[in-house]
Amino acid sequence: MTARIRDFLATRRPEGPCLVVDLDVVRDNFLAFRRALPDTRVFYAVKANPAPEVLALLAELGSNFDCASIPEIEMALTAGASAERISFGNTIKKERDIARAAVLGVDLFAVDCVAEVEKVARQAPGAKVFCRILCDGAGAEWPLSRKFGCEPEMAAEVLEHAARLGLRAYGISFHVGSQQANLEAWDGALASAAAIFRELGDKGIQLRMVNLGGGFPTRYLKDVPATEAYGRSITDAVHRHFGNEIPETIIEPGRGMVGNAGIIKSEVVLISKKKTSDDVRWVYLDIGKFGGLAETMDEAIRYPIRTSHEGAETAPCVLAGPTCDSADVLYEKTPYELPITLEIGDEVLIEGTGAYTTTYSAVAFNGFAPLRAYVI
Amino acid sequence: MTARIRDFLATRRPEGPCLVVDLDVVRDNFLAFRRALPDTRVFYAVKANPAPEVLALLAELGSNFDCASIPEIEMALTAGASAERISFGNTIKKERDIARAAVLGVDLFAVDCVAEVEKVARQAPGAKVFCRILCDGAGAEWPLSRKFGCEPEMAAEVLEHAARLGLRAYGISFHVGSQQANLEAWDGALASAAAIFRELGDKGIQLRMVNLGGGFPTRYLKDVPATEAYGRSITDAVHRHFGNEIPETIIEPGRGMVGNAGIIKSEVVLISKKKTSDDVRWVYLDIGKFGGLAETMDEAIRYPIRTSHEGAETAPCVLAGPTCDSADVLYEKTPYELPITLEIGDEVLIEGTGAYTTTYSAVAFNGFAPLRAYVI
Repeated sequence: MTARIRDFLATRRPEGPCLVVDLDVVRDNFLAFRRALPDTRVFYAVKANPAPEVLALLAELGSNFDCASIPEIEMALTAGASAERISFGNTIKKERDIARAAVLGVDLFAVDCVAEVEKVARQAPGAKVFCRILCDGAGAEWPLSRKFGCEPEMAAEVLEHAARLGLRAYGISFHVGSQQANLEAWDGALASAAAIFRELGDKGIQLRMVNLGGGFPTRYLKDVPATEAYGRSITDAVHRHFGNEIPETIIEPGRGMVGNAGIIKSEVVLISKKKTSDDVRWVYLDIGKFGGLAETMDEAIRYPIRTSHEGAETAPCVLAGPTCDSADVLYEKTPYELPITLEIGDEVLIEGTGAYTTTYSAVAFNGFAPLRAYVI
Repeated sequence: MTARIRDFLATRRPEGPCLVVDLDVVRDNFLAFRRALPDTRVFYAVKANPAPEVLALLAELGSNFDCASIPEIEMALTAGASAERISFGNTIKKERDIARAAVLGVDLFAVDCVAEVEKVARQAPGAKVFCRILCDGAGAEWPLSRKFGCEPEMAAEVLEHAARLGLRAYGISFHVGSQQANLEAWDGALASAAAIFRELGDKGIQLRMVNLGGGFPTRYLKDVPATEAYGRSITDAVHRHFGNEIPETIIEPGRGMVGNAGIIKSEVVLISKKKTSDDVRWVYLDIGKFGGLAETMDEAIRYPIRTSHEGAETAPCVLAGPTCDSADVLYEKTPYELPITLEIGDEVLIEGTGAYTTTYSAVAFNGFAPLRAYVI
C-alpha cells in the first residue's frame, strides 16, 4: 500500500471493484532491475499490465518490450518505443501476424520449432530469432507447463535451420517459472544455453544473446529475495557458464515490474454460513476469478488482503467471487484468515495485484463489467 | 453443425476466431423444454449466452429470465421481457443492486441465508424470495461447489425469517450440477424440498414454488439423455414427493438451451514437438482458455472438434491456446485425437460452444480481442 494509492481511494471513492496502480512503484522496480543487472536489457512483458500509462513511463525510462501479439506491439509503439526495442516473444504466431510485425519494423522473434522458423523466414527475411528451451521450473510458485520451448537438444537443430533459411540465429531463451524464489534456478538453464552456444559455434554459427526470461517474483504473503540478490546470482551463473565470452543478455520481467505497484479495492457483498452450526464463514467479494483474480486458480497465488479491522481477532473463511459460477471460489482448500468483525459492505484491499489482473478479466461474465483500472 | 452455420462460414469467411449461433436450434431447444415440462415455467439462465438476438427470440417465445446481475436484468428488459418474467437468481447481491432491481420492477429474489433476506426486506419490501439448498451433485460432469445454497435444515429458518420481515416466503431452489446425465439426480433434492414445504406448512407458511434449477446437458463427445426423458423423470419425482399438492415449478436451463446452438471457428496456428523423437504433437489454436474456452479448466468439458480431414487417421495431441500463459492448455492429461494430416493454417470447428464461451472471454489478455459472436 502506498500513500498515493491511499489518498486516491480516500478522495476519489471509485464505485465498484477497481485496480489502482502507482507509477512511482513501477519506476522504482525498473531502476532496481537496471541497477541489479546493469549490462542486461530489460524487455517489459506487456501482457502483465498493458496500461498505456505504464507503457509510456517504461518507454521513457528506456525499457524495451516483450510483446505477445500485434495489438501489444502496436501499444508499445504508441507508448513511444521504437520497433528495435520490441521483441515478438510469443512462440505461437500466425504467419500473417509475423508479416504485420515485420511491416511495423519488428526484427526479433521467438521460436521453438522448425515450423515457426519457416514462417518467420517467409514473412520477415533476415530477422533475428531466438529459440526457447524448456527448463525445469523447480522452486517457482507457479511452475510453467511444457507449452513453450523445446528440449535443449532440439534447439541447435531449430537454430541451424534458421541460419540455413537466411535468418540470424541470434540466441536462446528460457523461463524459470513464475514467481521464482530460488536464486539458483537460472543456473541449470544457463548451462544448457552455453552448451548450445558451443555446439553451434563449432558449426560456424555464432549466437549472441541469452534471454533470461521472467520469473522475478513480487511479494505476496511470503517474503521474496530482493532484486539485487537475483542480479548477483544470475551474473555469477552467466560468468560460470560463458567464461570470458559473455553474451548479450535480456530479461523479461512482468510480475516483478508491476505486481507490487497495484492494489485492488473490493467490497464484501455477503458473509454467510452453510448451516447455523458451521464454524467457517463464506465471505463473498465483488471481484473473483472471472473479474481479474484468475491467478487464484488452484489457489496458486495468495494475495495479502487488508481490511479496516487491522489487529482484530481473525478466523478462517472461504473466500469467493460474486458470479453465479460455482468455480468462482478464490480460497477454500486453504481457508483465508479474516477478521471476525468483518461485515457486509466493508471495503477490502487486495495487495500485489498490479500484474495479470485487468486483462485476465472476463469481458462480461454474469453481466459484470471488466475490472476498471486507475493509473496514478 | 447446422446447414445455416456451414453456409454462414462458407460465404462470410469471418477473420479470426468466432462463435456462430444458430437461432433455429435455440428455438427448438426452448420448444423441447416446454413440451417435456408443459406445466413448468422456463427461466433462461442469461449468463450462458446473453446475445441480444438470443434474448429477443426467447422473450418472444414466452421465456422468463434468470439474471445474475443488474446488467443482465437490463438486457432481459431490453429484449422485451416484462419485469415479472425476471428472477434475480444470484444469492450474492449488493444491497444497492437489490434496490435497483426493485425499482425496475423485479419481484423474485434468490437467497440462501438470513443476511441476504434482510437486504431484500430492506430494499424490496414484500417481494417473493426462494431459498437455495445445497444438494449432492453426483452424476454431474461438472459438480458444483458448495458456494451457493444452505443445508436443507437451515432453509426453513431462512424462509421463516423472510416471512417475519414481511417478504413472501415463496419456495425452494436447488441445482443438481452442470451437465447432469443422471435422470434421478432431481429426486433427492425434491425430497428435501417437499420436507421443507411440510415443515413450514405446519407453521402456517405456505410455500408455492420449486425452482428445479439447471443442469440439463448439451451433447459434447458423449451422448446424453433427451429432454423428454428429463421431463418424465422430474415430473414423476415431483408427484412422488408432493402427492396431490403439486407446487409451481420453474427450470433454469442455460447450457441446455444454447450449448448445441453454437460453433466456434478456429485456426491451427502451430503444430510442433518438444523433441524430434516425441510421438505426441502439440497443436496450438487461435482460441484457448482465456479466449472463451474457460470450461476446459481441469479438462472438465471436452468439446467435439471437426476438421476438413474427416475420416483420416488420427493421433493423440496436446491441444493448447495462443497466449503466452503456460496454463492456457486445453487438453493434455487426456490428449485429444486429431488427424495426422492436420496442418498449420487449417480451420477447425469446435462444436457445442453456444454456452459459457463469449462472456467468459478475457477482455484483452495478451492483447487478443474478446471472442466475437455472430447470431444467425
